Amino acid sequence: MSRIGYFGPQGTFTEQAVRQLADPERNELVPFDSIPAVVAAVRSGDVARGCVPVENSVEGAVPATMDALALGGPVVAVAEHVLPVQFTLLAKPGMKLDDIKTVASHPHGLAQVREWLDNNLPKATAIATNSTSGAARDVLAGTFDAAISAPVAALHYPLAELATGLGDVKDAKTRFLLLAKPGILPAPTGADRTSLVAVTTNEVGALSNVLHELALRDINLTRLEARPTREEFGTYRFYLDVEGHVAEHRIGDALAALHRRCLEVRFLGSYPRTEHKPDVVRAPSTDADFESASAWLGAVRRGEIA
Amino acid sequence: MSRIGYFGPQGTFTEQAVRQLADPERNELVPFDSIPAVVAAVRSGDVARGCVPVENSVEGAVPATMDALALGGPVVAVAEHVLPVQFTLLAKPGMKLDDIKTVASHPHGLAQVREWLDNNLPKATAIATNSTSGAARDVLAGTFDAAISAPVAALHYPLAELATGLGDVKDAKTRFLLLAKPGILPAPTGADRTSLVAVTTNEVGALSNVLHELALRDINLTRLEARPTREEFGTYRFYLDVEGHVAEHRIGDALAALHRRCLEVRFLGSYPRTEHKPDVVRAPSTDADFESASAWLGAVRRGEIA
Amino acid sequence: MSRIGYFGPQGTFTEQAVRQLADPERNELVPFDSIPAVVAAVRSGDVARGCVPVENSVEGAVPATMDALALGGPVVAVAEHVLPVQFTLLAKPGMKLDDIKTVASHPHGLAQVREWLDNNLPKATAIATNSTSGAARDVLAGTFDAAISAPVAALHYPLAELATGLGDVKDAKTRFLLLAKPGILPAPTGADRTSLVAVTTNEVGALSNVLHELALRDINLTRLEARPTREEFGTYRFYLDVEGHVAEHRIGDALAALHRRCLEVRFLGSYPRTEHKPDVVRAPSTDADFESASAWLGAVRRGEIA
Amino acid sequence: MSRIGYFGPQGTFTEQAVRQLADPERNELVPFDSIPAVVAAVRSGDVARGCVPVENSVEGAVPATMDALALGGPVVAVAEHVLPVQFTLLAKPGMKLDDIKTVASHPHGLAQVREWLDNNLPKATAIATNSTSGAARDVLAGTFDAAISAPVAALHYPLAELATGLGDVKDAKTRFLLLAKPGILPAPTGADRTSLVAVTTNEVGALSNVLHELALRDINLTRLEARPTREEFGTYRFYLDVEGHVAEHRIGDALAALHRRCLEVRFLGSYPRTEHKPDVVRAPSTDADFESASAWLGAVRRGEIA
Repeated sequence: MSRIGYFGPQGTFTEQAVRQLADPERNELVPFDSIPAVVAAVRSGDVARGCVPVENSVEGAVPATMDALALGGPVVAVAEHVLPVQFTLLAKPGMKLDDIKTVASHPHGLAQVREWLDNNLPKATAIATNSTSGAARDVLAGTFDAAISAPVAALHYPLAELATGLGDVKDAKTRFLLLAKPGILPAPTGADRTSLVAVTTNEVGALSNVLHELALRDINLTRLEARPTREEFGTYRFYLDVEGHVAEHRIGDALAALHRRCLEVRFLGSYPRTEHKPDVVRAPSTDADFESASAWLGAVRRGEIA
Repeated sequence: MSRIGYFGPQGTFTEQAVRQLADPERNELVPFDSIPAVVAAVRSGDVARGCVPVENSVEGAVPATMDALALGGPVVAVAEHVLPVQFTLLAKPGMKLDDIKTVASHPHGLAQVREWLDNNLPKATAIATNSTSGAARDVLAGTFDAAISAPVAALHYPLAELATGLGDVKDAKTRFLLLAKPGILPAPTGADRTSLVAVTTNEVGALSNVLHELALRDINLTRLEARPTREEFGTYRFYLDVEGHVAEHRIGDALAALHRRCLEVRFLGSYPRTEHKPDVVRAPSTDADFESASAWLGAVRRGEIA
Repeated sequence: MSRIGYFGPQGTFTEQAVRQLADPERNELVPFDSIPAVVAAVRSGDVARGCVPVENSVEGAVPATMDALALGGPVVAVAEHVLPVQFTLLAKPGMKLDDIKTVASHPHGLAQVREWLDNNLPKATAIATNSTSGAARDVLAGTFDAAISAPVAALHYPLAELATGLGDVKDAKTRFLLLAKPGILPAPTGADRTSLVAVTTNEVGALSNVLHELALRDINLTRLEARPTREEFGTYRFYLDVEGHVAEHRIGDALAALHRRCLEVRFLGSYPRTEHKPDVVRAPSTDADFESASAWLGAVRRGEIA
Repeated sequence: MSRIGYFGPQGTFTEQAVRQLADPERNELVPFDSIPAVVAAVRSGDVARGCVPVENSVEGAVPATMDALALGGPVVAVAEHVLPVQFTLLAKPGMKLDDIKTVASHPHGLAQVREWLDNNLPKATAIATNSTSGAARDVLAGTFDAAISAPVAALHYPLAELATGLGDVKDAKTRFLLLAKPGILPAPTGADRTSLVAVTTNEVGALSNVLHELALRDINLTRLEARPTREEFGTYRFYLDVEGHVAEHRIGDALAALHRRCLEVRFLGSYPRTEHKPDVVRAPSTDADFESASAWLGAVRRGEIA
């Protein structure tokens, strides 16, 4: 029974994600007050793993996660999960839609179902709470009639699901990472992602050269986020997600090139992608290509061949 | 007398910035409730200009500004201002440091002077308000003893400045943009910045090629931010700041190349940089180089020379 | 009736080529002693056009042509022709293969039919002459029994063709250019070639950047030859052939970029390729892409759009 | 006493070069009739080393050497020598300039001293011989009055040097290679050259990518020559000379990348450059940078650090 931390409280989308990433039957899921608290618990060994949101298709990157990954002791991602952001309308058992006069949720939650509320609960008053699960708790306590919550909230609060799959932005999604201390490197699956942080030099073309090192090895960059270094205004730390696993030659070779080229490179993990479409590695960049080139170079250096 | 909108309320750092960007003696400064509201007022012509924060050296990019610039009708930046984030401690006239039992501010403000408070007002209770200027208003109303505010708050609330230049993060800065409707293109000064938004294709190396178009023209990329397109998860809109003015050949030529190469390019303005260090344009990329090459090409195409 | 010069003497492959490039019924074909003499005659206006070999699939580039194009007054290619190098065995009328005791040709010609001679004229003695057509002339004069010549030699010397299509190297070919003074720019056909000379700076990556300017515009480099500049040892002049016509935007744009980037660029002409497979110009590099980008940039600079 | 082959005959510039590259007191210098014969003797072990010209600052690349290096069994260069092409006027002892009525040399030799002859021997008749040393031999035999020869010819033919350092093209030079069978890899000196042959794929940008692999590792390309592959017209084999030694990481790494990327790569040796100006290897490309990156990658892959 391992302790798995997550950004709480109970009943939120992060709990929903951690339940996909760590079997709740075999692990103790522990909510933390903040993202930095989750990451600190991973670093200290208080928890074996920690689950945090990393980006959302509407809100963008989650700055607290970005900063927690880049600064302080090292942690690595060992898994990811992409969750559709679909809300559930929870109400006291027996209550019908027409009875609802007050509906509560976190302001973000309310914002994301605004249209649905206008169409389906035009007369209900929307009330802001500190979290989507807090709204469910308040409904259970009788403070409000209904809550807009993550589906998982129903696990903790015995309420009725009056509607599910709510969300004005079609296909809204959040990506979560499962973090661990270094030492754990999931085996390559052929459909992996590698995350890293790089701080480039200040020369013209520095970032262009970093991306060129990837492109020349046919590596697909799936995400590039910037965060200020907090040192000098106008200097940035870049977060890169690429398709592939550090155990693969093209990825390892590119990471070594970035290590040479950048002021700082931090490895943030290689882990299976949620979408399982395998990488198509093109001809000059397969592991076999790298191994054959390396064998050839060794023979050349030993003077065996030309 | 033009109306100049800014992200309010009165007494915040954005007001401080707009006062640098638009002479308050000759313009009417109008606070708006939100960043989208400022941008909407620029678009509608309700205000001639609008001032919004765009990035902070601690918090990073301001998502509301990024999204407002990229989506909806076009607006362009015509000026920028970089403001040191230094707070002032405002209290009722006559009050001394030792008398202060309660100190109020927006949570971000409190967070940024935490150390100073611990060292200088160890016994005072910190209280969160909705804005840094709201805290000053509350002090004037007698609710709290002191406020951590932007220096400009003292203009609106007749309070005593007990301490200035407060801020735990050394050199914290915020950059603000002054927005206008297209049609206004500030003249090149030799030390300009050009901002744009680009959505690349999905091919491996697409962003690398975009940056290469800049690097090959010796264009210095000063900022690259990603925001989700909100269409498909894992697709991004990139915000690029480069040194130079669209009226310069190397910038115009690069923008045209990006227009060809990207799914979408939006021009967000060319405007003088706050720091006035002039661009050093290297040999193959000066305007003279472009003009001489263009003249040569014209002659070649007319069959005049080889 | 124009005078068309060619690298003689009569009866060689260059005459064979010039007959394809200039209608012999409507032009006077004038042999010259050397390649520089042909080019000089074009420059002086003594001839309207001049035909010279430029590269051979076995021997490589023709240095005399390379140097004549790059140095001295400008000339441009207005057409090319690729000729299979297939020899003909010419002998006195009535003579049979078995009768041949001596076979003459230029040493290059003899070298290229060595195998055929071994198999078909094993007993004949091979004798070197100054040119393949000189051998035919000598056969007519009775000095030798047979000649290995270009097929066109039969036009000038009434000899019998005992065998044709001879050549040990399968698919051996020579490419010829038809040169003119600048002022003549053949219209684009959709399957053109543009030739140029460039001298790069001495910086690391200079040639790489030149090729990158082409690659970023999807321009296919079909040939890159180096010749010493004759100024400093280890400095080179590069001859580039690319697919496309200078009237096309991607080519003109790339040539202008090279003009900025290189110490020297000389345009050597845009002309239809012998093989008529039309260029497939990819999406970001079509003329329409360039025109749309240019129109957009103009509107941006006029402040009309963003 | 090793046998060292060279492209003869005796008394030519190649002999002059081989005497710099192999101590004539301790080796037997053996002239061969042709460049392919020298290379074949190296391959067969008939000679321990072979000396051939590889490029000339006036004539360009020596095709016979290029082809001999690329085709057939492997040979590698183990040394180079750059020789100024300066001729000597040799005459029978006692003869004065004014007495000279005939002056003989290889046509190339005559061409390169044309101006000097016009100015100093305006009345002498120039006569072509098969080699510059053959002219000296003929002078000794009394056939001609004087010879334009390589200085070394005087070693073999007891003639008087009436003038030295002759050459119309200032600074004309020839570079020679000393070839050996693979197995011999001279130690790095910090001022080395590495030669190789590469055949690229047929894709747009293939050569550009090859050069980019070099440029990204700060490798200075000092020479790029093309020769037809002889297979399909318009396909080429590229000869690259770069500064650095295959034992250095940046060179080895680049060669491995080329091996992956190209249809064919042949290593032609790493050897000290004639000019001893040491390589200045820039910051991200030193051996220390590569070793540190490799150590870091190893630790990442073992899960030790992030």
